[in-house]
Amino acid sequence: MAGYNLEAIEAAPLKEDVDIVIPTIRSLDFLEQWRPFLKHYHLIIVQDGDPSINIRVPEGYDYELYNRNDINRILGPRANCISYKDGGCRCFGFMVSKKKYIYTIDDDCFVANDPSGKEINVIAQHIKNLETPSTPHYFNTLYDPFRDGTDFVRGYPFSLREGVTTAISHGLWLNIPDYDAPTQLVKPRERNIRYVDAVMTIPKGVLYPMCGMNLAFNRELIGPAMYFGLMGEGQPISRYDDMWAGWAAKVVCDHLGFGVKTGLPYVWHSKASNPFVNLKKEHKGLHWQEDMVPFFQNLRLSKESDTAAKCYMELSNMTKEKLTEVDPYFEKLADAMVAWIEAWEELNPPVDGKDVKAR
Amino acid sequence: MAGYNLEAIEAAPLKEDVDIVIPTIRSLDFLEQWRPFLKHYHLIIVQDGDPSINIRVPEGYDYELYNRNDINRILGPRANCISYKDGGCRCFGFMVSKKKYIYTIDDDCFVANDPSGKEINVIAQHIKNLETPSTPHYFNTLYDPFRDGTDFVRGYPFSLREGVTTAISHGLWLNIPDYDAPTQLVKPRERNIRYVDAVMTIPKGVLYPMCGMNLAFNRELIGPAMYFGLMGEGQPISRYDDMWAGWAAKVVCDHLGFGVKTGLPYVWHSKASNPFVNLKKEHKGLHWQEDMVPFFQNLRLSKESDTAAKCYMELSNMTKEKLTEVDPYFEKLADAMVAWIEAWEELNPPVDGKDVKAR
Repeated sequence: MAGYNLEAIEAAPLKEDVDIVIPTIRSLDFLEQWRPFLKHYHLIIVQDGDPSINIRVPEGYDYELYNRNDINRILGPRANCISYKDGGCRCFGFMVSKKKYIYTIDDDCFVANDPSGKEINVIAQHIKNLETPSTPHYFNTLYDPFRDGTDFVRGYPFSLREGVTTAISHGLWLNIPDYDAPTQLVKPRERNIRYVDAVMTIPKGVLYPMCGMNLAFNRELIGPAMYFGLMGEGQPISRYDDMWAGWAAKVVCDHLGFGVKTGLPYVWHSKASNPFVNLKKEHKGLHWQEDMVPFFQNLRLSKESDTAAKCYMELSNMTKEKLTEVDPYFEKLADAMVAWIEAWEELNPPVDGKDVKAR
Repeated sequence: MAGYNLEAIEAAPLKEDVDIVIPTIRSLDFLEQWRPFLKHYHLIIVQDGDPSINIRVPEGYDYELYNRNDINRILGPRANCISYKDGGCRCFGFMVSKKKYIYTIDDDCFVANDPSGKEINVIAQHIKNLETPSTPHYFNTLYDPFRDGTDFVRGYPFSLREGVTTAISHGLWLNIPDYDAPTQLVKPRERNIRYVDAVMTIPKGVLYPMCGMNLAFNRELIGPAMYFGLMGEGQPISRYDDMWAGWAAKVVCDHLGFGVKTGLPYVWHSKASNPFVNLKKEHKGLHWQEDMVPFFQNLRLSKESDTAAKCYMELSNMTKEKLTEVDPYFEKLADAMVAWIEAWEELNPPVDGKDVKAR
């Protein structure tokens, strides 16, 4: 294999199939530390806030950058479905990508080490998670049965061992845990120092809080459901962009028969955001999640919704019907969900006249 | 605190409230290694097989021992609900205990070490698992939120943070994994060397394969549903004793609103049993589990069943009704389930005329 840099190939699996989406308002110097792992991948940078600010991208990275002016130009009247002054703007990057997989990361996240001291290759782990099946119908007590050194345990039905296609890989964070403002205020010094060496499927019918900090997914399968909502400036709510996407995408995965994993890989989350600012941003969400979670827990999508896009259109109707009584904001959100799907389909015309269907 | 052996107190939490149940056919020399952790607890030893064999118990342990003659004497005509020549006979110990908590362990399990090399106090961890709430309604991505150094993450509804009372703590095994015979045959050298530093709730509505090797539970809450079935000599099936108990107990916990945890603590499982012998014992179970699992996944207990014993009686009816078509064995099992509950209630008369009800 002379002439091939095997280490680099191993370090950068499926580099033609992955886009890395980064929302930012500042220079991307954090990418310097990621160079060994991310340099082979194409970046889609979504610049939030003032478009006149110059975002510095470390040399040698291959990237495209979109600011608010670009979003307005590309989406036209539908551009207002993309949040402004909120990390939720990242979903614009999901829409303009043409790749199979998306990895999205926050710019205050750095390379973490495993307990042996080795630097963690986040992409390699996410790709492994996405390319091996999930097991949403029954819990395996030794966790991911597709991992080296483990398997299905006694009492696991053989008919369920094939698993289902994985659509989402949710990675975790060492150092600063992803707490809400009240928990941040109560536990200002709590740090996540526990490396849990596991990947697991979140069972069918079970919801979880999906954090957008270190997240990978198969955009062909689930992309249209990965809408990060209407948050930030001009909206009554913030910091629920990833939660909304996570609940919706989980419900859609469950309906279409795709799997969702959580666990490895870890990133090192460097900075706790200001809990008082967060409290202001999320206080409505803290209240509304008491209605949003049961809404997602109880809804049933119809058989006709056999693609992520169709599921999401149905979800928009349900949002309008059921959540508008919680707050008129949800009517606006439901309309934005429709605009999102219309824009998605315009930018991603169905192949052979068909969207990707559930297997 | 002069005069108190603080280390021993810490090492043996709630020693008045826990019985340790051990099924065995041989000498209990394995207890020598467990002495630092188990010596303070009362043991209930259930001798399987030939009652004339003398079981040697290491000195200093406080114990009661029951052989087959004792079981026949105590239970009379109902004694045939207790398996013979199968580890499932352990459930007789659950029935004669008067304690709140049961810890049951196999005699080929030894003290394991955590990654720092420290010996793991299994009972202390199980008690911690049982005395802190479970969170079956929504998944927490940082695992057990009641553990030191962690909490509920952003996006976890506050109304769900109180959790529910925990009824079962399922511990894991390093070294020999709990595989079925086909997997043992295919992977004879696979060892579990991965210490996953986590405890988690198995969500409501999700089944798992409960292994009886390293298991603790609250017998006041769930004891009557911890019946290890009819296995071993005279039965067409073996090695499904714990699975049957696990499926039934999970369904009853879900119905009554109790929680089930899995993960820490680990024991060191020393010996792989013979895969060819296991194949003979479990071949019907491997087949039948394809029907047993959907049976438990789909059944709905009635509102009137508001105690574990009542749930179990209802489950017996359902077993007879739905599983007898799989094999006539299940009719015999259903009758044994009734005998088990009758015997349980005779040995554990309801306090104040009432069984422990769901909260």
